[in-house]
Amino acid sequence: MRILGIDPGLRTTGFGVIDADGPRLAYVASGVIRIAPGALPPRLKTIHEGIGEVLRQYQPHSAVVEIVFVNVNPQSTLLLGQARGAAITTLVAGGLPVHEYTALQIKQAVVGYGRAAKSQVQAMVQRLLGLPGLPSPDAADALACAICHANAGALTAAVAAHSALPAARGARSRRGRMR
Amino acid sequence: MRILGIDPGLRTTGFGVIDADGPRLAYVASGVIRIAPGALPPRLKTIHEGIGEVLRQYQPHSAVVEIVFVNVNPQSTLLLGQARGAAITTLVAGGLPVHEYTALQIKQAVVGYGRAAKSQVQAMVQRLLGLPGLPSPDAADALACAICHANAGALTAAVAAHSALPAARGARSRRGRMR
Repeated sequence: MRILGIDPGLRTTGFGVIDADGPRLAYVASGVIRIAPGALPPRLKTIHEGIGEVLRQYQPHSAVVEIVFVNVNPQSTLLLGQARGAAITTLVAGGLPVHEYTALQIKQAVVGYGRAAKSQVQAMVQRLLGLPGLPSPDAADALACAICHANAGALTAAVAAHSALPAARGARSRRGRMR
Repeated sequence: MRILGIDPGLRTTGFGVIDADGPRLAYVASGVIRIAPGALPPRLKTIHEGIGEVLRQYQPHSAVVEIVFVNVNPQSTLLLGQARGAAITTLVAGGLPVHEYTALQIKQAVVGYGRAAKSQVQAMVQRLLGLPGLPSPDAADALACAICHANAGALTAAVAAHSALPAARGARSRRGRMR
């Protein structure tokens, strides 16, 4: 299962791609789409084309975007909302299921502590994916999104396996009693 | 020149299509894309698919979206930003130039008064396009965007024609003096 994490922004939009096989994670790619200043429509077009290029090149199965909360600056909130809308629209237009997690959930999943600093997220992303160097903050955030979703998937699978066990036993013992 | 106006929102996104031939305007179509409540990604997908359908059906040459300002409610600002991002991304992905005007500019162009009420915009849109009935508020706002851009285009053309005249005369008189 190949997961694409996106960290949307109107100046830079980070992306990170990982492969998840149960609890095993493998780094595929990461980077930053840089958006030139100017009018909004061409900036959203850059996000759209950049993410489109990532989808064509890495063919992910699902995508993850962080849930954002309103900023202290309302103008920044509007700008971020537009960048986020462009990113999610490109992903759903590409036929990908898009999952959303809060920053708290992502940091909890990656660092084990919901209030972790950006530098801690970068360090743990490097460690979990066995990267030779520290990823850039934007790429680290995008990779952290993907890792959070991979862990959530592994957890769901583990819970399903665990709850399938007694049910299977129950079925067998009932069959036993029927003999 | 066929112009598409879009009034983006996460519950309803209005659209209006007009043909502009200099100062002459002709109504083509208008309507509302209704978005079912639920998670954000499928809602943005509905906006994307709805606008995509309008683009295929009416083949506009350019698009217009109102510039929004931050709302008193920051959460609403974020939601509107995301809807707006989805709409503009779909338009630029479709290869359309996207123009933006403030509500003040749009009301000024349509009603002649920047602080006009919604009902005045509806009434003037009906009159300017010779519609048999009052358009819905969402459709009226979208049509008003398109009308504003058509007027700006007609004005630009008129100014260009006007300023071309003295330049042409100047050239002729200069040529005259050279004889």
